[in-house]
Amino acid sequence: MTQRRPLRRDAETGRIEILDQTRLPHETRWRPLADLDAAVEAITDMQVRGAPLIGAVAAYGVALALEAEPGDASLAHATARLRATRPTAVNLGWALDRVADAMSPLPPEERAAAAHALADRICDDEGARCEAIGRHGLELIRSVAERKAGAPVNVLTHCNAGYLATFDYGTALAPVYKAHEAGIDVHVWVDETRPLDQGSRLTAWELGEAGVPHTVVVDNAGGHLMQHGQVDLCIVGSDRTTAHGDVCNKIGTYLKALAAFDNGVPFYAALPTSTIDWTMKDGVAEIPIEERSADELRVTRGRDDEGRVREVSRFAETTPVANPAFDVTPARLVTALITEYGVFDASVAGLEELRDRLERAG
Amino acid sequence: MTQRRPLRRDAETGRIEILDQTRLPHETRWRPLADLDAAVEAITDMQVRGAPLIGAVAAYGVALALEAEPGDASLAHATARLRATRPTAVNLGWALDRVADAMSPLPPEERAAAAHALADRICDDEGARCEAIGRHGLELIRSVAERKAGAPVNVLTHCNAGYLATFDYGTALAPVYKAHEAGIDVHVWVDETRPLDQGSRLTAWELGEAGVPHTVVVDNAGGHLMQHGQVDLCIVGSDRTTAHGDVCNKIGTYLKALAAFDNGVPFYAALPTSTIDWTMKDGVAEIPIEERSADELRVTRGRDDEGRVREVSRFAETTPVANPAFDVTPARLVTALITEYGVFDASVAGLEELRDRLERAG
Repeated sequence: MTQRRPLRRDAETGRIEILDQTRLPHETRWRPLADLDAAVEAITDMQVRGAPLIGAVAAYGVALALEAEPGDASLAHATARLRATRPTAVNLGWALDRVADAMSPLPPEERAAAAHALADRICDDEGARCEAIGRHGLELIRSVAERKAGAPVNVLTHCNAGYLATFDYGTALAPVYKAHEAGIDVHVWVDETRPLDQGSRLTAWELGEAGVPHTVVVDNAGGHLMQHGQVDLCIVGSDRTTAHGDVCNKIGTYLKALAAFDNGVPFYAALPTSTIDWTMKDGVAEIPIEERSADELRVTRGRDDEGRVREVSRFAETTPVANPAFDVTPARLVTALITEYGVFDASVAGLEELRDRLERAG
Repeated sequence: MTQRRPLRRDAETGRIEILDQTRLPHETRWRPLADLDAAVEAITDMQVRGAPLIGAVAAYGVALALEAEPGDASLAHATARLRATRPTAVNLGWALDRVADAMSPLPPEERAAAAHALADRICDDEGARCEAIGRHGLELIRSVAERKAGAPVNVLTHCNAGYLATFDYGTALAPVYKAHEAGIDVHVWVDETRPLDQGSRLTAWELGEAGVPHTVVVDNAGGHLMQHGQVDLCIVGSDRTTAHGDVCNKIGTYLKALAAFDNGVPFYAALPTSTIDWTMKDGVAEIPIEERSADELRVTRGRDDEGRVREVSRFAETTPVANPAFDVTPARLVTALITEYGVFDASVAGLEELRDRLERAG
């Protein structure tokens, strides 16, 4: 499989560019990531999103800040600004800590190049993790395919945890891509994922590009599909996973997990171990949930009948709106976690086993 | 409370007009219901929606057909066309049977006037049922208000089961309106209700008109709100209720019922007994679920930055879409049914008790 990345280095200028995901699926627009401001804006406005990708872009943001001014104050300022962009994904802080810890001991003149190299490595590492997640998750899909004797395996996913959220294979979609590559007949139910429509805009787009059969449904439909045997397994991503196995992911994930549990459908979260927050236990009580702008519900972008992309307002600005961006699925509803180290129980014991594995891996 | 109806008789012409709900909240446009074709189109295109209102408009549709041609063939043709418009709501067939049974024995020259009078009566009866539902449901809200000692009572609702779906008080919103009239501090979480946005377009609009505090959230948010104690009770409508207490309502209702059950939040369906289908037991297995057009997900109407109402396409027409319009909430997840005869258990025993009450009421 070729590298598929929502972030690249322009061959001529050597500058970093990001695929502006707010423009998809209407326009494929690459934007230069020229400086710290651009990195902050890209994360805040969700031109880039998805926990692993946010971490990588933040790392480049620090590198760009150090290019402009390599001193300790600049390093501290850049990490502080980037850390404040979004509160829920744990990878952001993880990547920033990693870059800051590595840059602090270096002489200022070496920092920019070293930070760029580290950011590159974070991208490559995430890509490798995604590939490994895909390999482990493939076996889960393969066993369903064998049981169904060639009938299509129906996977439901929520939001976008494909390569647009990270690199190459994505997380939740990695097992799907691996199954498709292996010739397994796999079909994906794509939750629209309101309010930002990451499902209908991004997941449908990337599955379409890859030739994977899929069908978009409203977020409301998954329970009905599961009641009628039309979902074999659910796979979602995770923005933060607690040491007890609670999974924080895009708002609405919890509702799908409840429906899966009620209908005996396995519910998996696929995640690189970089999304695990070992300091937290009770996800519902402890994980901060980002509240985002009312405009995300009110304003929709699309093509008008002349083919022009424009925004329309669905209801009056005076209508009160609340917009929590994530929810927490308690571990009791999660069948297992698919990680780059294999498949683990979403439980205290499962996470301890995973931690041992991580420690052995160094 | 004044009569609030999405259907009226024009004072000058005497013709029936309907409030075109596809235009809300951007435009308040009344359309003439001039003939059978207009009635069929109004129901099919969801200019009118909501189980009780559909039944009433179908009754007027028969009356209009009999105005044009009062014979038996015309009566049979009109009821057949109207019956085929939408498959899920039971009131449609109920209203059509009632009109056909009453008109058949009449001499043709008397039918049109009689059918109009019966349609008027169906509207008034539905209005009276809604008022009664409101009175019974008010007591449920009042007891929460007393327990919360004056803090706002938070009600979550899905779709629109307000007066726009029926008459005067609506069904699910009737207890809310009654509580608001009684001076109880009540606040409504309004599910957006994709794909047709009946929550953000219609429920928010009518609550706003009535001055009832409310907040729009995406359909994905309800579980998170319940996990955090921000919902005191859920009240939804019903398009068809089985003799065992299963509730068929707008797609996504089942997911909210699961979340309510998981968090110990009472979950009520408010319904006139005209929505009960005594011939059905297992709602998931037996109730036909309407599959609607992909355009409902793909196309959104809103105001552009010049204030003009226009439609935009959110994703390519080639993107595969499935669009089931309803789902079934099993009785085990429903705390109780709020009907015009009082509050009954959503169970075989509760429905039998309700049936006895109905038979005694004649």
